[in-house]
Amino acid sequence: MRDVYVIGIGITSFTRLEYPLSEIAAYPAMMAMKDAGTRAIDHLYVANMGGGRINHQTGLASAVVDTLSLTPAGAETIENGPASGGSAVKTGYMAVASGLHDTVMVTGAERMREVNNLEATDFVATLTHPLAEHIYGVTLPSLAAMFTRLYMEKYGVTERHLAMVAVKNQNAALLNEFAHLQQKISIEGILDSPEAMTNNPYVAVARKVDRPLVKLAGVGQATDTHAVHEREDPTDLLAVRRAAAMAFERAGLVPADVDVAELHDAFTILEIVESEECGFFPKGEGHLALERGETALGGKLPINVSGGLKGRGHPVGATGVAQVYEIVHQLRGEAGERQVEGARVGFTCNFGGFGNNVVCLAFEREN
Amino acid sequence: MRDVYVIGIGITSFTRLEYPLSEIAAYPAMMAMKDAGTRAIDHLYVANMGGGRINHQTGLASAVVDTLSLTPAGAETIENGPASGGSAVKTGYMAVASGLHDTVMVTGAERMREVNNLEATDFVATLTHPLAEHIYGVTLPSLAAMFTRLYMEKYGVTERHLAMVAVKNQNAALLNEFAHLQQKISIEGILDSPEAMTNNPYVAVARKVDRPLVKLAGVGQATDTHAVHEREDPTDLLAVRRAAAMAFERAGLVPADVDVAELHDAFTILEIVESEECGFFPKGEGHLALERGETALGGKLPINVSGGLKGRGHPVGATGVAQVYEIVHQLRGEAGERQVEGARVGFTCNFGGFGNNVVCLAFEREN
Repeated sequence: MRDVYVIGIGITSFTRLEYPLSEIAAYPAMMAMKDAGTRAIDHLYVANMGGGRINHQTGLASAVVDTLSLTPAGAETIENGPASGGSAVKTGYMAVASGLHDTVMVTGAERMREVNNLEATDFVATLTHPLAEHIYGVTLPSLAAMFTRLYMEKYGVTERHLAMVAVKNQNAALLNEFAHLQQKISIEGILDSPEAMTNNPYVAVARKVDRPLVKLAGVGQATDTHAVHEREDPTDLLAVRRAAAMAFERAGLVPADVDVAELHDAFTILEIVESEECGFFPKGEGHLALERGETALGGKLPINVSGGLKGRGHPVGATGVAQVYEIVHQLRGEAGERQVEGARVGFTCNFGGFGNNVVCLAFEREN
Repeated sequence: MRDVYVIGIGITSFTRLEYPLSEIAAYPAMMAMKDAGTRAIDHLYVANMGGGRINHQTGLASAVVDTLSLTPAGAETIENGPASGGSAVKTGYMAVASGLHDTVMVTGAERMREVNNLEATDFVATLTHPLAEHIYGVTLPSLAAMFTRLYMEKYGVTERHLAMVAVKNQNAALLNEFAHLQQKISIEGILDSPEAMTNNPYVAVARKVDRPLVKLAGVGQATDTHAVHEREDPTDLLAVRRAAAMAFERAGLVPADVDVAELHDAFTILEIVESEECGFFPKGEGHLALERGETALGGKLPINVSGGLKGRGHPVGATGVAQVYEIVHQLRGEAGERQVEGARVGFTCNFGGFGNNVVCLAFEREN
């Protein structure tokens, strides 16, 4: 397999954009081409989950490739629920690693302003098991609530720990001009904080060029039972552990090498658990590392300095690509006030379903 | 890049199945694993266009990988409108060719029984350009009608030629037990023939094994302007020509090598035009080859002996995978009454949008 590099990135605000889904996906792609100094794109992957359901649009990749005037380059939409972004980047990696394409564009977008909060919850619930979960009214917040309660019982995680994740990430977003939530919060005030769904976009391009080189060093992906109640231990996020181990092994890296990570904090508990399952902290001790400040900017392993899903926003299909944007930004040393000093190895964890399809990516700066 | 082979295939009837979308996709995958004699699948790709829109289901690939008990194998849904199947097979090709995965499952499914004909037309229209076409009520049948009229004017194609395609393909379906339409038709009776949307599935698996070896020798894909009216000459299906040429070039083959082809006859005119753009006949002469019987079973280049989209059915996202099933079936010499004698080279053309994203695949029997 050929080596694969991220040579250009772009991002726009995570906010309620007026323009169509295809343009939301196209705009950061234009920025990424400018950043990379090339328009010679062989293939386009678009990460999106809700086009058909929410925006009455299919064939989105064909619309985006045309909007970017990149025809006749081939194009596909990659869907893997909230891990669509990670899956799209992984597919782009394959396209370049295989030698089939030289330069690939990956962009992610979601336009969720059409739906209200209740409809958004229903939309996201379409990724639950259709027969074992969805028909009984299971939603992602309800799955997360049950999961959180079990984890609190088992490992001594408290509501205060959950609030610490929220405060850390939402306040980190104050240093990220593209983040959706730009409002300082405190642990005390946290139970009232509104969490709105948003739309969004970003981009990554792959192949070697003559500039700060960020290598996509390892990709990992694993699935688990679709229905959460079928897992032997629902607090055991097996797919995260497997996907992370695979990414590290392929990259020839270990968790201790990581300088900065973007984890999938769709719910606060998930950042804590993923920080364990990815191998950064022992099982059941993620909340203790959080307490010690190790995962904050300036700590041993800053997690979600972008604001994470909590602060930056979580427009499902696009999130995984935004994680890659942040890591490349960090490894290039371009992150300004939220820069993790001397970061050379980065890691992303993009959590599909409720842990039924997880994509992890390991990045390394080469020069 | 490593060589890639199709080692197992499976298919179920194109009919109104009662079971859920995830099981429609899973069943032929089980057949393909049996056919291949292995369950060691590294990764799953599911071709689907309507899950979110029609079936209120996203994250379909995660559901299918679980239904097949293939976890922790990774899984993604690949969407490229009616060319989703071709795109999924091409992505599976990359996964194996890159060395990232050894054995990949590709399945395609659509469950369209939830919607009536009008809703199905609206659903398919979600792939048209959202601002330049869709909002003006453009549908695929209306695009095809305008295209057909132009082609008739320009190249002397008559209504009788169109009827000949329909008769050839629908009657060919009588030799395909899995085909949706099992009703003999005549050119005279053709204007009254009802054309119902259907659901469906099939499957392909890739990598070398010890049995009749069918190599996926070349993949090609090209896009064109999303809005049809923006093309310099709307009768020029540039993306088909480019995708076909790319597949042939990568395979080291030429159109004259092809013994059997599955073309995308979503509308009768398309089989005629694709038979030209793929290089089998000169531009504007496809209907003459059809008249001479060259594209019928027993002719020089049998096209759509499976019944094609017209006879077998066209459950959008699954069609491209069904095309691959038929070609592998033929190249193995297993097609029984509809076998093309001595077929060693096969070709598929899967037409996305109204020609805005086309995938062509070239197959070769090795032993």
